[in-house]
Amino acid sequence: MKKSHSPISLRDMGSFHVGGRTVQLHGQPEYHRVLSAGGEPVSVNLNGTYMIEQMYVQYFLPAQPNGKGPLIFWHGGGMSGAAWETTPDGREGWANFFIHRGWDVYLCDAVERGRSGFAPVPEIWPEKPVVQTVDDIYSRFRIGDRVGSYDHDPSRRSAYPNTRFPLNAFDQFTKQMVPRWTHTNEAMIAAFEALLEKVGTASLLCHSQAGPLALQLAARNPDQLRALVAIEPAGIPQIQFDELRTPALIVLGDNIETDNRWRLLREKILQFAATVNSAEVLSLPAIGITGNSHVMMMDTNNQQIAQLIDAWMTRIIDG
Amino acid sequence: MKKSHSPISLRDMGSFHVGGRTVQLHGQPEYHRVLSAGGEPVSVNLNGTYMIEQMYVQYFLPAQPNGKGPLIFWHGGGMSGAAWETTPDGREGWANFFIHRGWDVYLCDAVERGRSGFAPVPEIWPEKPVVQTVDDIYSRFRIGDRVGSYDHDPSRRSAYPNTRFPLNAFDQFTKQMVPRWTHTNEAMIAAFEALLEKVGTASLLCHSQAGPLALQLAARNPDQLRALVAIEPAGIPQIQFDELRTPALIVLGDNIETDNRWRLLREKILQFAATVNSAEVLSLPAIGITGNSHVMMMDTNNQQIAQLIDAWMTRIIDG
Repeated sequence: MKKSHSPISLRDMGSFHVGGRTVQLHGQPEYHRVLSAGGEPVSVNLNGTYMIEQMYVQYFLPAQPNGKGPLIFWHGGGMSGAAWETTPDGREGWANFFIHRGWDVYLCDAVERGRSGFAPVPEIWPEKPVVQTVDDIYSRFRIGDRVGSYDHDPSRRSAYPNTRFPLNAFDQFTKQMVPRWTHTNEAMIAAFEALLEKVGTASLLCHSQAGPLALQLAARNPDQLRALVAIEPAGIPQIQFDELRTPALIVLGDNIETDNRWRLLREKILQFAATVNSAEVLSLPAIGITGNSHVMMMDTNNQQIAQLIDAWMTRIIDG
Repeated sequence: MKKSHSPISLRDMGSFHVGGRTVQLHGQPEYHRVLSAGGEPVSVNLNGTYMIEQMYVQYFLPAQPNGKGPLIFWHGGGMSGAAWETTPDGREGWANFFIHRGWDVYLCDAVERGRSGFAPVPEIWPEKPVVQTVDDIYSRFRIGDRVGSYDHDPSRRSAYPNTRFPLNAFDQFTKQMVPRWTHTNEAMIAAFEALLEKVGTASLLCHSQAGPLALQLAARNPDQLRALVAIEPAGIPQIQFDELRTPALIVLGDNIETDNRWRLLREKILQFAATVNSAEVLSLPAIGITGNSHVMMMDTNNQQIAQLIDAWMTRIIDG
């Protein structure tokens, strides 16, 4: 795997958790289990206090900041903050790109993903986690050209002929997928509100599932978000025109017209942008950039798209 | 929260996943669910291929490396790579410390923790995840002075009088705990073998649950590990004398004699070190460093302990 080989100078880096609340369990039976190889059995007593719904945040503050404030990254469904790091084929991801551009970068694992942990299942969260198959990911992220385009044998997979996704690294890409739940939207928004409380006014770059949630976050906290970039939001919330003051850029990739779900989503998105003054749509194919998948931050032209986003955010913030 | 405020210069940083294998599910019923707020319902078809047992690794390569090769971090049970980052009260953690000392640092989330994801439950992993209560963590990590020492009201908690754990940040600390499983030992070891295959001969710094697994890793891969530091290993595997060639340092904190489980573990550890030439024990109280908890990498004297470890590894590697 290639390394990214770009020196990075930071004035600080580290991590923290924000948000979260405690809940209690009572009346659960106790049992014993050896938790470590060669260790002593310990009692597992489920009764007691749990910390749940917190969010993990890792920050990278460049030595030469650009003065535009924090840039918060919010990954999509079934993913974690790793989505913004090194691409599956070993190129630099958007985290490094925006650090190089002097942004104070905050990489989050949304509530119940990755290093944010999750609540006891099923005692506190009765719903079981949703995990997508590799088959679904291949077509749903518009790498494969239709439902059923995945095959265990890479040579028999059917990808869009113009795809920019690094096909040889698809199996590697699937290693970064994590299970997720579907009842945690409000908890996720609350954790990002806690983050904004901590770091102050910020810009937000989000993907897929995070899109509609980030739009709600922006609508509820109009003075907290400078700029919002949503990569292929997987839905549009019911927001009235005067509820969204934050300038928002929605970026769409290619091959949407052949995908039933994404064709419907694009209609919703275009209707939203037509009625909400502060929102605009950047359709990459419309400006001659073709072949981008749903995970364009990993596509082979990811640096080109990042440059467009950086330029838009800079224009919004610097005026 | 204080920031660490120590500039860091890196020649590269990024992340990748290693290991993993694909498994298939058949015969599961299909269902529909809206996965994103305001989105279109999608079919959740559990049948198909899953990638499982991969491991997430984040790397930080200093601009001025010390030439001692990679230093791999392996967290304890119920934790993730975040354990080595900023302490719960906002001081610099061991990741930053060892980067400052010129080590090529690799922070891992062991299989099924954090950004490594986990397999569909219960279809592929029938066992449900184990989550420790905050109550258990407080006493089991030897912060509280006895079972039942935790209270929801911080002023009513009963900690060891000499504890070095930052008590005001205990609730913050609990936010970094994640669920875990108990059947994944071999998968964890296999993922670390894949990591050694990728980065080459390395040193390893591990904690608690990882201790006995890392000792097995070292026994099976005698030429791959230069030095092994185990912070309070939560068990000792059955290893014969001639199986462990890697020099190993086992670090023990304070107040062990008042904790039944840890008193038994210390006996096993001392017996192990007495029969295995390459292993030695560093009992911190024996050299006048008192009050350290089971999570000494977060204790207020964490830099002092890191210096001892750095000096030991340097002596082992440089001779």
